[in-house]
Amino acid sequence: MSIKLYGYWRSTASYRARIALNLKGVEYEYVPVNLVNDGGEQHSSEYSRLNPAHLVPTFVDEDEDIILNQSLAIIEYLDERYESEHRLVPEHLTERARVRALAQDIACDIQPIGNLRVLNALKGHFEASQDDVAKWAAHWIALGFDGIEKRLQTQAGKYCFDFDVTLADICLVPQVYNAQRFNVDMSRYPLISKIAKNCNELSAFELAKPENQKDAI
Amino acid sequence: MSIKLYGYWRSTASYRARIALNLKGVEYEYVPVNLVNDGGEQHSSEYSRLNPAHLVPTFVDEDEDIILNQSLAIIEYLDERYESEHRLVPEHLTERARVRALAQDIACDIQPIGNLRVLNALKGHFEASQDDVAKWAAHWIALGFDGIEKRLQTQAGKYCFDFDVTLADICLVPQVYNAQRFNVDMSRYPLISKIAKNCNELSAFELAKPENQKDAI
Repeated sequence: MSIKLYGYWRSTASYRARIALNLKGVEYEYVPVNLVNDGGEQHSSEYSRLNPAHLVPTFVDEDEDIILNQSLAIIEYLDERYESEHRLVPEHLTERARVRALAQDIACDIQPIGNLRVLNALKGHFEASQDDVAKWAAHWIALGFDGIEKRLQTQAGKYCFDFDVTLADICLVPQVYNAQRFNVDMSRYPLISKIAKNCNELSAFELAKPENQKDAI
Repeated sequence: MSIKLYGYWRSTASYRARIALNLKGVEYEYVPVNLVNDGGEQHSSEYSRLNPAHLVPTFVDEDEDIILNQSLAIIEYLDERYESEHRLVPEHLTERARVRALAQDIACDIQPIGNLRVLNALKGHFEASQDDVAKWAAHWIALGFDGIEKRLQTQAGKYCFDFDVTLADICLVPQVYNAQRFNVDMSRYPLISKIAKNCNELSAFELAKPENQKDAI
């Protein structure tokens, strides 16, 4: 298959890319990269040639001769390459900007701080316990969701933006999955919870769930 | 003035937005938000109405009736609104994607982990000392720069991408500024260093420097 996604079942950035591929109706081969076993396959010489940052996901499109990291860049690439399909970033100037900003509220301000490698580093640098790092992860998710829930009050409909499923929803749903893992009290976020539920009723989201991947354990 | 940027002199995300405004030749009013004094002006009720995440920067364009957070979203908005000017994200499908990915290597995988609020939280959660948090910040910058330096070997010219100054350079230069603050050994990154130097010779970058802002101390 000319399109490959290297990812890890529980990586939320990989999860985002899977949702987008499904929403765009793109067939792809999913290649698991185990972030945990043997110190992490992302550090292998083979994989780090594809992705010198040693992170997932990595997207390969052989027809366009492109190897791409960063889930948001991958998703916008898919959206621009398959323009005729459902648009994940709307066409209107200000709507596009608002969708991207909400996606980045998650991808820049929440997810990176509670990443597996960061949690491991907290244990190494500060002798943090498993309980400490779980609290750390939950703290940043809750702080980020506080702001997002307020923003959604002025714009949300069935999805983050009234109009349709967008890049913002693609980022929100995996972050809600992670929030549940870290026992964030989701009753504080009725709009976020409702939107995640609406998204998860769509097959593109269902098929992308961590537990539905071949590398899930 | 119809365009305002709320920012902080030393915030690298604010710094990115200032560079982009300058490169696009957009006149704007810079409104300082002091992140340090009195527990941080970003938490004031007035500012948090503009930005419920209590972060900088926030961009306001009264003519288009938009209030926008997230530096990357702000920069792409500027690029799309002022299309006739110098393009910060190139037009070609795969080039666009590569530029965005490199920008996100910084904006998602480096900057958020060494953010002021994260460093303060390390002190609170783990009793980290000032020296500990400085090492933490330097660690993530070096790790990220290791990957970026490798990527640049296959594509860099005078700037991150041969063709011209892009969104990637706009993210790189503030991150180099931060690397120097945290004493990262920049001799390990000859390509990054050369590109930052080339960018800093342009007036758009010079005028955006933290020390050239009215709130610099």
